[in-house]
Amino acid sequence: MNCEILTIGSEITLGLSVDTNSCVISRELGKIGIEITRISSVPDDIELIASAIDGALNRADFLTITGGLGPTVDDLTREAIVKFTKKKLLFDPDLAGLIKKRYLSFKSSMPEVVLKQAHLPEDTIPIIPVQGTASGLIIETGEKVIFALPGVPKEMEEMLQRGVVPYLLKRVGHDEIINIRTLKICGLSEVEIQEKIKKVLEEKKTAIALIPHFGQVDVQIIAKGNLDHTQRILLETENEIRKQLKDYIFGVNEENLEKVIGDILRERKLTLSVAESCTGGLLSNRITNVPGSSDYFQGGIISYSNKIKEAVLGVPEEILSNYGAVSSQTAEAMASGAAHVCNADVSLAITGIAGPGGGSRDKPVGTVCIALWSKEFTYCKKFQFCGSREEIKWKASQKALGIVWRFLLKKPIGRD
Amino acid sequence: MNCEILTIGSEITLGLSVDTNSCVISRELGKIGIEITRISSVPDDIELIASAIDGALNRADFLTITGGLGPTVDDLTREAIVKFTKKKLLFDPDLAGLIKKRYLSFKSSMPEVVLKQAHLPEDTIPIIPVQGTASGLIIETGEKVIFALPGVPKEMEEMLQRGVVPYLLKRVGHDEIINIRTLKICGLSEVEIQEKIKKVLEEKKTAIALIPHFGQVDVQIIAKGNLDHTQRILLETENEIRKQLKDYIFGVNEENLEKVIGDILRERKLTLSVAESCTGGLLSNRITNVPGSSDYFQGGIISYSNKIKEAVLGVPEEILSNYGAVSSQTAEAMASGAAHVCNADVSLAITGIAGPGGGSRDKPVGTVCIALWSKEFTYCKKFQFCGSREEIKWKASQKALGIVWRFLLKKPIGRD
Repeated sequence: MNCEILTIGSEITLGLSVDTNSCVISRELGKIGIEITRISSVPDDIELIASAIDGALNRADFLTITGGLGPTVDDLTREAIVKFTKKKLLFDPDLAGLIKKRYLSFKSSMPEVVLKQAHLPEDTIPIIPVQGTASGLIIETGEKVIFALPGVPKEMEEMLQRGVVPYLLKRVGHDEIINIRTLKICGLSEVEIQEKIKKVLEEKKTAIALIPHFGQVDVQIIAKGNLDHTQRILLETENEIRKQLKDYIFGVNEENLEKVIGDILRERKLTLSVAESCTGGLLSNRITNVPGSSDYFQGGIISYSNKIKEAVLGVPEEILSNYGAVSSQTAEAMASGAAHVCNADVSLAITGIAGPGGGSRDKPVGTVCIALWSKEFTYCKKFQFCGSREEIKWKASQKALGIVWRFLLKKPIGRD
Repeated sequence: MNCEILTIGSEITLGLSVDTNSCVISRELGKIGIEITRISSVPDDIELIASAIDGALNRADFLTITGGLGPTVDDLTREAIVKFTKKKLLFDPDLAGLIKKRYLSFKSSMPEVVLKQAHLPEDTIPIIPVQGTASGLIIETGEKVIFALPGVPKEMEEMLQRGVVPYLLKRVGHDEIINIRTLKICGLSEVEIQEKIKKVLEEKKTAIALIPHFGQVDVQIIAKGNLDHTQRILLETENEIRKQLKDYIFGVNEENLEKVIGDILRERKLTLSVAESCTGGLLSNRITNVPGSSDYFQGGIISYSNKIKEAVLGVPEEILSNYGAVSSQTAEAMASGAAHVCNADVSLAITGIAGPGGGSRDKPVGTVCIALWSKEFTYCKKFQFCGSREEIKWKASQKALGIVWRFLLKKPIGRD
């Protein structure tokens, strides 16, 4: 069975916003064996929307629409569906009550226009909202089915999982699925990985994609077929790849370095602190994005000014004046200072020049010193990153996380 | 004149990769008055590609394709164009020489398959590559034109500017352009804004879109026509909207709250510090994403543990034990403590429960206290946010930035 995706919104066709919903929908429907044969985006224009619905349902079994379900005048998805299906738009008083209650739990009064969302095409199976106020719609029209979901990514994703996937599983079963397993690599480049797993790639037993991010590469193994077959292929391929890359795989699928590190810290009953200069809080932010990080993360000092480096972290004035704020000596003193003031077992420090200003001949933009401190081991290294301010911040935080990961697993940190 | 965009690649329809090229093309063609009426993506399948080309050229004047121009077996764009246009695919020896030379400047030897890229549909105007080895194609077919560009974003964008835009300007002139101005709003919801600017919306002088983000709404004014006309319409509409929303507009176009606040702080020679508990560094990270933020940002204390709240920020132990870490009293003490230790004129503090764990009946997940401290004025309020951990962190940081913005502009902060 196949499905098209249609995203509605002039912000997309005007180039003001990137459609990320289609990627999530493609991946999730792929998992249950629904093949996505086309993704389209059209502006908030009832004729263009209705014509796109028409074309899609001529070609595909299912159509998943996102966007255009809100209360404002440019939300036209309900109207376009009605225009195409020739169904009536009916007011649902129960739904109206629910929307009103939800709305008034956020705000003190509700404008009447919000209740536009209580109108549904006749014979709709609504997916009642649990986050916002827009319902999802499941509309059967002949042999075909339209799913309409809100454009807000979180709401869309929740309704996709709660409403669309169960409906499709009931309707189509899932004999042939697409199964994907991602191995997350830290410490090797795309080309180095390609060299190491050359044999596996050349065997072509199944599709393998290498997706580089800053300071990390995802190796995606993609298998098609029934569940048993795909699971076997994924397992075999993963084992072969693990033989070559074992020291560099930090996680699988949705795992990220900050979560993996957190799990190790918790298990080993260790605590962590950070001192950040050029990353300005990004490292702490990433660490604290992990639920439950308060189990091991004590806190951090964002020592943007030298005064804080001295007064809070206890970096000696001589080190700052002799070696400068961006130096291995300062990074080491920041790391041990943060461990002391935060009472932590392990501590990371980052100091550098994120740019675009502040660089010099000796210390150009992108110069970053990263230190790790623990009672039994310390490490410090100077790196040179390239890119925009935000890219340099990201790469530095990623490198720091890679360092603490390798330290915790007692792997050599030496590689850059 | 209008144009459709077609991106080719199974990685997109499998949900492994987000199509960002379409956003760039939409924006750049919009600037020269070409309206994008549909964006589509299809897998690497010659039938699906040819059928999508057919549909697009039936509807639109122009079609811009990206992807599928490389040397591998799943690069099928040239073949699909030939299938659709019934033109021949011809080998271009000059182009082959150029590709070979380029390739051998990166690598020591060239596999024969690379020369697949030296085959062009007859009557193609090639856009000779200056970065990679894939040429862009301009193919006139009847009254319609197909542009085909590589999928690699940097190569695509370069050929768009060097090949497609000049061709289109020559062909269509640019009397009619799309001009967009975005007003950034903080402190009002989408629906409240719609109510306040109801009259402007009803006049329908030009298109206006409201785009909500967490804790912020973008009001986009979109005008079509020649440059003078659009500039006049944008100015008139902006003035009308400003009359209604004046106290809530913090910036225009690409500006964000953190940059706007930074500009005010720099101008007024004020310094800023933060103390973060539940936001865990996000607020500092956002503030330091702004280039030059070291002019006014002193630093911050991420006081995840109570020990740091006491030892570094000087929050009295009695306050923590009597009112708890998530309380107005603690937030206020954190704010003044951070100002003291960081030597700052203005200080923000955030303490709360980001979840998913840690909530209680009295203080459910999403309870956040935000305080602002300055010598002459202090403010503190308890908020209730909803959403995931990362959403609550974001909303809290956004609210804190909104508070300091209103404080700096001496506007009442009172509203939620």
